[in-house]
Amino acid sequence: MRQMKWGTIATWRMAHDGVVKASDLLAQQAQAGDAVEALIKTVEAYPYYKSVGYGGLPNEEGVVEMDAAFMDGDTLAQGAVGGIQNVKHAISVARALAKYHYNSFRVGEGATKFALLHGFEMTNMLTPRAKAEWQKRLQVLRQQPMTAYDGHDTVGAIALDQTGSMAVGTSTSGLFMKKAGRVGDSPLSGSGYYADSEIGAAAATGLGEDIMKGCMSYEIVRRMAAGATPQAACDQAVYPFVAKLKARYGKVGEFSLIAMNHNGEWGVATNVEFTFSVATADQPAQILIAHPAAEGQTKIEPVSEAWLANYERELKAPL
Amino acid sequence: MRQMKWGTIATWRMAHDGVVKASDLLAQQAQAGDAVEALIKTVEAYPYYKSVGYGGLPNEEGVVEMDAAFMDGDTLAQGAVGGIQNVKHAISVARALAKYHYNSFRVGEGATKFALLHGFEMTNMLTPRAKAEWQKRLQVLRQQPMTAYDGHDTVGAIALDQTGSMAVGTSTSGLFMKKAGRVGDSPLSGSGYYADSEIGAAAATGLGEDIMKGCMSYEIVRRMAAGATPQAACDQAVYPFVAKLKARYGKVGEFSLIAMNHNGEWGVATNVEFTFSVATADQPAQILIAHPAAEGQTKIEPVSEAWLANYERELKAPL
Repeated sequence: MRQMKWGTIATWRMAHDGVVKASDLLAQQAQAGDAVEALIKTVEAYPYYKSVGYGGLPNEEGVVEMDAAFMDGDTLAQGAVGGIQNVKHAISVARALAKYHYNSFRVGEGATKFALLHGFEMTNMLTPRAKAEWQKRLQVLRQQPMTAYDGHDTVGAIALDQTGSMAVGTSTSGLFMKKAGRVGDSPLSGSGYYADSEIGAAAATGLGEDIMKGCMSYEIVRRMAAGATPQAACDQAVYPFVAKLKARYGKVGEFSLIAMNHNGEWGVATNVEFTFSVATADQPAQILIAHPAAEGQTKIEPVSEAWLANYERELKAPL
Repeated sequence: MRQMKWGTIATWRMAHDGVVKASDLLAQQAQAGDAVEALIKTVEAYPYYKSVGYGGLPNEEGVVEMDAAFMDGDTLAQGAVGGIQNVKHAISVARALAKYHYNSFRVGEGATKFALLHGFEMTNMLTPRAKAEWQKRLQVLRQQPMTAYDGHDTVGAIALDQTGSMAVGTSTSGLFMKKAGRVGDSPLSGSGYYADSEIGAAAATGLGEDIMKGCMSYEIVRRMAAGATPQAACDQAVYPFVAKLKARYGKVGEFSLIAMNHNGEWGVATNVEFTFSVATADQPAQILIAHPAAEGQTKIEPVSEAWLANYERELKAPL
């Protein structure tokens, strides 16, 4: 029997247009994998988003290096790329790689070579605006050494389709001013993403180096398998791990997780202000904002008009 | 109070000399991280081992690309490299990267650049013997297309030192004839390796593309955290996942996992004949052989003299 439930959730306000697109597709019985790819391509193509795809900020050498992954929750097939260059849609390359049993995670030149060989659209991913921001940062760094990194807003997206199949994908240009070849959690199974159609899926955004220390996406899916709701799974995985990392490693970066189970229920947890977009068969696409709350829980509410107006203004502000 | 327990375990017969070395170090109160690095360097340096370090078989283009990782079980700090070239000891580069909060996983040219910049010993890793084997395979491939890959014997190593600290490391040249930039599970947190000194550690060898579909190392450590012995944790993580992958993905590659807990107890599970070496305060280094047994358990016994003699003969046989 076909279920009519469907749902999609993705990280950050930037994913909203993609979530609208994916929800249209899912309502029309599209496959979860197609919805995830369409969602992420929408984010990758938008030049004002500084941390994903076209317009993404470069590494310290001025090169835009991208990470992406795709997982099919039915078969557990995975494809991923790390440090790929000049490819317009890293998510599509990752999805194509998921068709192979061997050689399905490719990095650096080898990843770019795969994209060329398989006819993926290539383009110069460094926009004039991203170049200007990089040059500005280089000047600042001449005065003072870099203490923190930013711009690590990965798009992570989950879809549940009407046949009950789930898929997850991620795409990012990684940390702004990262070292050449730095790879974060986004293309790493269980850290940046995980999906099992019989259970649910999760995806991460934030400081990859810390997310991978806890295999956050796998841990959330595992907790859903053990019976937790997506929200409880997120809360129980994220907040104790944040505390553990502070105690053991001495510090912890910012990160946020999203999850959806095979019934289309969803949850998020975060140690920083975190926007996301979600749509289900029962609820049209909406942008919500999450904050860590007391006692290891998450406060979630709609974003205000003022927040959205300010976001739009900052997005396109002169540099 | 200082405990006097210590232990070390590593994948494959090839790791035995390294295990002997690590056990000497641990008996003399060396740190777990130093023991793991020394163990793996021993394997990397031995030219007859075709899947790790010097003498490792190249990718399809004739280039030796190496993956390695290191994790400190006290702090959860991780360092890793994927597709690094011309570096004599990939494990040492991974360990050096674990000192950084950012940019601790580097791939491709960026990884090699880090090694150069930080003064690591560089060398041509393609031995005449490995080159000959590659050329021979190229000739075979002119006659018949490649159907399966082999040579995916990663060295994975765990150490528990007398202060109770644990560390884990991996190093491999990956699949023989892999595509350029292919990365397996070895440098991926939770898939190829995981360590938490308060619980235990695990490491993997085998077909990385399948190991990462199940985040096998993290899952084993998690089960130990929930109270399982290392052997039960290995059995309960590996065999159900092998069955699940067969059912869901339609096939499953060969892989093997090792684990040790913070008391120095250990376990392994495998879906193929699998040798390993283990030493503890109570038991000198010994080579054991494991096979999957009935009812999701693992049969473990000492290797025979005949097995060892045959291994030595094949290792150095004319090509």
